Amino acid sequence: MLTLALESSAKAASAAVFEEEKMLAFAIQNAGLTHSRTLLPMAEGLMRQLDLPLSRLDRVAVSRGPGSFTGLRIGMAEAKGLCWALDIPAVGVSTLEAMAWGGPVLDGQMLCCCMDARRGQLYNALFTVEGGRLVRLTPDRAISAAELQSELIARQEPWILLGDGAELCYNTLDRSQVAVFIAPEPLRLQNARGVALAALGQDPVPAGELMPAYLRLSQAERERLARMKTE
Amino acid sequence: MLTLALESSAKAASAAVFEEEKMLAFAIQNAGLTHSRTLLPMAEGLMRQLDLPLSRLDRVAVSRGPGSFTGLRIGMAEAKGLCWALDIPAVGVSTLEAMAWGGPVLDGQMLCCCMDARRGQLYNALFTVEGGRLVRLTPDRAISAAELQSELIARQEPWILLGDGAELCYNTLDRSQVAVFIAPEPLRLQNARGVALAALGQDPVPAGELMPAYLRLSQAERERLARMKTE
Repeated sequence: MLTLALESSAKAASAAVFEEEKMLAFAIQNAGLTHSRTLLPMAEGLMRQLDLPLSRLDRVAVSRGPGSFTGLRIGMAEAKGLCWALDIPAVGVSTLEAMAWGGPVLDGQMLCCCMDARRGQLYNALFTVEGGRLVRLTPDRAISAAELQSELIARQEPWILLGDGAELCYNTLDRSQVAVFIAPEPLRLQNARGVALAALGQDPVPAGELMPAYLRLSQAERERLARMKTE
Repeated sequence: MLTLALESSAKAASAAVFEEEKMLAFAIQNAGLTHSRTLLPMAEGLMRQLDLPLSRLDRVAVSRGPGSFTGLRIGMAEAKGLCWALDIPAVGVSTLEAMAWGGPVLDGQMLCCCMDARRGQLYNALFTVEGGRLVRLTPDRAISAAELQSELIARQEPWILLGDGAELCYNTLDRSQVAVFIAPEPLRLQNARGVALAALGQDPVPAGELMPAYLRLSQAERERLARMKTE
């Protein structure tokens, strides 16, 4: 089963091609160029270098959120376009779960996946590893650093911080209260390798049913609601 | 300073573009296709996706060995061709040191970098991490698993095994005698990211002076010597 995985939930964009659980090729770009220009050419380059026509793809996996609204829309839209044209299904995976899969994944490790959600919050989920398998400890949620800190203290330490919010989290938590360390760089940021691995155990759906999981309202929706209340 | 890094010392091939210590783009292919077909197109794809003409490159970094004789020759030859055409210098880095740089690199970690050298030997070097910097504990060498085992026991445990020989090493060592574990996959295999990081602290040389470091004679050379002895 050949999977193309796409990740564009934050500043970096990446693509990967997997045959079952084996990574055949992977590319990542972190130069701040817009994902709408980089993501598909990167995927196309991988397939061409592998001598694989697009028609060989069995499914497309994509991170469905949380993350940058624009980034997620680009990734989801490109995945849907590909799936529609190739008549193959899609798998949408949690960005936070993809981070955990892209991380160290050694037994007993406690993984704290974080993205900067702005407005004083973090997108976060907690995982651990048992028998080489990822075990989810919390749902994906948007919480304050103070709430997260209480939870981390209440559970077993130390915590490995993953995701593009790892540094923010490291700097915000009171480290005299909880032992945390930041995962080394190539494991830290969410990427298409983690998306492909997270998608492995999931059933694909018709691409039209893929829905982003923003976890919060967009700024435009918040402002509209506020306006409607005051009117 | 813009660096293009190339890695083709084993089965996978990879390329990376770094601006100083920041990774702008990275691609890896591990589908068993020949490096002579994949390595330069991969590098070209990265530069194109970054909107950077080749003329912007300041140097090319390449793993100079140990490793597959054919793989190393392809990487070195492509690096030399590029450097000659662009009139820029090159940096040759130890494949084993590149592995260590591509690994976890957390303080206090003991890194055992291994490649299968065939004929009952491993290509190996040992490193540790102090103050975020890699410290070399041994030179690059070809040694038996038994010799390596004695050395690992004599030093502080546990050891993180890195490189495309990590699994071989894990299976060969007597694990009741020495605590070892295999680094998670994306950190384990030597790759162009590690090459770029290892090259950061090194002075470039004219590309014509780049020399592979095979550490042992090739099969053809061994057989020729044996023939000369018996004649």
